[in-house]
Amino acid sequence: MPRSCAPGRRPDYPTFYPLQTRWMDSDVYGHINNVVHYSLFDTAVNGWLIERGLLDPRGSQTYGIVVETGCRYYSEIAFPDRVTAGLRVAALGNSSVRYEIGLFRDDDETAAAEGFFVHVYVDRDTHRPVPIDDRRRKAFRGLIPCPDNGLPDTGAGA
Amino acid sequence: MPRSCAPGRRPDYPTFYPLQTRWMDSDVYGHINNVVHYSLFDTAVNGWLIERGLLDPRGSQTYGIVVETGCRYYSEIAFPDRVTAGLRVAALGNSSVRYEIGLFRDDDETAAAEGFFVHVYVDRDTHRPVPIDDRRRKAFRGLIPCPDNGLPDTGAGA
Amino acid sequence: MPRSCAPGRRPDYPTFYPLQTRWMDSDVYGHINNVVHYSLFDTAVNGWLIERGLLDPRGSQTYGIVVETGCRYYSEIAFPDRVTAGLRVAALGNSSVRYEIGLFRDDDETAAAEGFFVHVYVDRDTHRPVPIDDRRRKAFRGLIPCPDNGLPDTGAGA
Amino acid sequence: MPRSCAPGRRPDYPTFYPLQTRWMDSDVYGHINNVVHYSLFDTAVNGWLIERGLLDPRGSQTYGIVVETGCRYYSEIAFPDRVTAGLRVAALGNSSVRYEIGLFRDDDETAAAEGFFVHVYVDRDTHRPVPIDDRRRKAFRGLIPCPDNGLPDTGAGA
Repeated sequence: MPRSCAPGRRPDYPTFYPLQTRWMDSDVYGHINNVVHYSLFDTAVNGWLIERGLLDPRGSQTYGIVVETGCRYYSEIAFPDRVTAGLRVAALGNSSVRYEIGLFRDDDETAAAEGFFVHVYVDRDTHRPVPIDDRRRKAFRGLIPCPDNGLPDTGAGA
Repeated sequence: MPRSCAPGRRPDYPTFYPLQTRWMDSDVYGHINNVVHYSLFDTAVNGWLIERGLLDPRGSQTYGIVVETGCRYYSEIAFPDRVTAGLRVAALGNSSVRYEIGLFRDDDETAAAEGFFVHVYVDRDTHRPVPIDDRRRKAFRGLIPCPDNGLPDTGAGA
Repeated sequence: MPRSCAPGRRPDYPTFYPLQTRWMDSDVYGHINNVVHYSLFDTAVNGWLIERGLLDPRGSQTYGIVVETGCRYYSEIAFPDRVTAGLRVAALGNSSVRYEIGLFRDDDETAAAEGFFVHVYVDRDTHRPVPIDDRRRKAFRGLIPCPDNGLPDTGAGA
Repeated sequence: MPRSCAPGRRPDYPTFYPLQTRWMDSDVYGHINNVVHYSLFDTAVNGWLIERGLLDPRGSQTYGIVVETGCRYYSEIAFPDRVTAGLRVAALGNSSVRYEIGLFRDDDETAAAEGFFVHVYVDRDTHRPVPIDDRRRKAFRGLIPCPDNGLPDTGAGA
């Protein structure tokens, strides 16, 4: 999520992924439970990776494991609202990538929730961090909103 | 699900509801867990009801509670497969309705799983069964595949 | 679930597995959603198998895949109710085992829900059915309530 | 979660809540999915509140809504691991309380994951923030690890 507390808007995100709420996502208060947002983040990120051929969950020799996540909740989402995830890359290290995700309800311009999701790439056999390969790195750069103005692709750090 | 064990096909269902798989639906064997199918049934039935104005989860004075469900699993579904639910009504009693649902993977013509879902309508305050009102009954009849050839709308029984 | 519609009681089950409800299990009606019961069945059956050394989810060369499940719902369960699963084997074939599970709320003697769960054993590589091995078969027989009076261990069929 | 990145230990938490993993919590990589941790946080916090009579989900006129959550993942948890949640209060405002939660696997002394969970108390009818009442405030103070050395109970702010 962004450093400031104001909800983001659709133009803050370079790409989008359509998501669906489920009846059982609603809790006793009638809106989708705070846990469900992470299930939507997870689906948007991994769905985006798989559809671009950047991840084969059962086959890829390297894949991202989740080391940190977070979410701010601004307004309610309730079944059967449609949700659109905005997706961007906020930091790209040697082995790690930080995604930021906004969840937009129906046709809302302002996010109902925003969060982040940090993957560290590891080897399937050793579970040790590995550098992000060039094909993935190129795709991740395409999700950095303004790649020219100094957003961190240090190629260093975890 | 049908009495026979052969998987149903799309023409066996009068209406359809689009569904989405989620990353976390997959279990350790790499396909969506048997529990998830029921979450999809639940979403298709309640989504269909809400979109037709037949259910307001927080407001309706009467609504269906689930008394029995079941599922047969014919073949694997895995994230990010798209799923389409076929929906039909197999029995319509005084207070109860039995839905049958087929889950079709991507563009498959044959169901990957089929199940059923029995709602008994109750009053929000008393939790006692009530007759299905005419507006809902009419809508449910529209989901009976061949309403003329004797499928049970007895208007009696639970 | 049993053939009759009357809820079972604790003495109908030879063994028990403790389960926990979660906050997010509750739906908009304030009780645990019908889908959650299957998550509890799944946990009781696989937990029982793993604790007895009969299943290593990542390693076993053969394991059960779920081919059919069902549940009857008799009364509400709500978080933070404790749940105890009663577990028995109702049929044991060459490759398949049918478990029946009763979910008992807190100290209730009568089941709040009862269901069944059919596993067919397959090979991890071929995904083809294989005979249930002797060690598992012996354990499953221990879950048949009255093994002497003719309950089906035919050693034949799927 | 704490400001530093080192995993916490059991003595960092004043109280504990037992939790259970479920079969379907595991994802395709064989460990519980990152989303599940939040379901455990949610269960520990709300379970602790309900068991102390501080929350009646269907009846309380005021209750906490979740405005922010986060989690750091240090090591794997897999079904059927037992999990114990350590629970503490890290900040207590006029309307808000920030819980920090550590998830300890089996008998491990070091947390497998740590997160936070911020509730803002609102009125059931208006959905507007309300001051935390004295009974809850007193209970929350009991979860502050070192209440004498200046941890923030300002009674001000959200």
